[in-house]
Amino acid sequence: MAEKLISLDHDVIMGTRNVAATLERKLSDNSRGPTFGEWHSINEKVNLMTFKNAVGEGELLINALNGAAVIPVIQSCNRSDFDNKILMDIANPLDFSHGFPPSLLPGLHNTNSLGEEIQKALPNAKVVKTLNTMWCGVMVNPAMINNGAHQNYICGNDKEAKEKVTGLLASFGWNKDYILDLGDITNARGTESTLLIWTRIYGSKGSGAFNMKIVE
Amino acid sequence: MAEKLISLDHDVIMGTRNVAATLERKLSDNSRGPTFGEWHSINEKVNLMTFKNAVGEGELLINALNGAAVIPVIQSCNRSDFDNKILMDIANPLDFSHGFPPSLLPGLHNTNSLGEEIQKALPNAKVVKTLNTMWCGVMVNPAMINNGAHQNYICGNDKEAKEKVTGLLASFGWNKDYILDLGDITNARGTESTLLIWTRIYGSKGSGAFNMKIVE
Repeated sequence: MAEKLISLDHDVIMGTRNVAATLERKLSDNSRGPTFGEWHSINEKVNLMTFKNAVGEGELLINALNGAAVIPVIQSCNRSDFDNKILMDIANPLDFSHGFPPSLLPGLHNTNSLGEEIQKALPNAKVVKTLNTMWCGVMVNPAMINNGAHQNYICGNDKEAKEKVTGLLASFGWNKDYILDLGDITNARGTESTLLIWTRIYGSKGSGAFNMKIVE
Repeated sequence: MAEKLISLDHDVIMGTRNVAATLERKLSDNSRGPTFGEWHSINEKVNLMTFKNAVGEGELLINALNGAAVIPVIQSCNRSDFDNKILMDIANPLDFSHGFPPSLLPGLHNTNSLGEEIQKALPNAKVVKTLNTMWCGVMVNPAMINNGAHQNYICGNDKEAKEKVTGLLASFGWNKDYILDLGDITNARGTESTLLIWTRIYGSKGSGAFNMKIVE
């Protein structure tokens, strides 16, 4: 996401708990790719800050955290720094504590969702849930699958915020005809729940380079 | 489902709590179509029996009940009548008590599922979950959508039972390449959870005549 935004000439800030510790980390996040420091050395334009400072400086905020970390990170920031800002939420409340495939975190599924909890924690932010139903590679490069003809969803309580996020998605290559507006943020219950089938398909295929297309 | 099976020359028994009351019902099930009696008068080959007798007589059982009714209906039957039989489960644990879109019934989602509860209640039956991710019209006539090129899933603990059900699906027009075997019955957590997005897409489109295709 950061690389894509840099390639589109945005100024990008990334938040972390401890800047020095993140840069010195010896293990990569997914045990395959580069360490954060190695990645950052070839993506120097990304400005690394604490979560608190990143939220303070940021204009449009993107939540791409581990689902379980989201509320604690919000609590480490100044709440007023979120006021009136768009918070594009692409995270999922995945619970890997019982192995693969994951379930969704207790209390954050079926009659609730991570998107809703974020909106409740930050009533003056404009939470827009999108992109969370697919692999990160597809999020920022929809054309890699079926010439971009596959489904994304968007939901949130603020119509104008959804329009602005849709504009950002269009700059990634998303055709607006494939971004279905489901309505308010409670519809995150629908999109987050797709991870329960997505992870099983992923487990079967051994690759995340797929997405769903609605056919009629 | 009954009409399709009759059209394929199967003997079809349908179960109900009270045969006479079902035939005399004055309201249709969905407040649009015919009453059961009207439907039955033009589908006379369908043999209506109590659930208990239907399960006793049936060779291959199909669960197409309201999700909340399934365990009570099983309890009204002789458990041994299910032994060694295939139980094709196409139901979903939908909870409309808080309106539309529905949630999934408490305790039957995320770390559990209706399919698993049925298998636990009937350890000697061979529960095979399939078709529950789409509208009933598409279940029995996959060719109505995108020439049949869209996704179905199958899961269950018995490999041979899944093969037999796949054969039945093929007789409905399903291409085996679009029936993804997810593994054991715990994977019903994945397929049942898709109702949380399915019902929202249905609400947006106003029609159930769609399905998902995996594109790569």
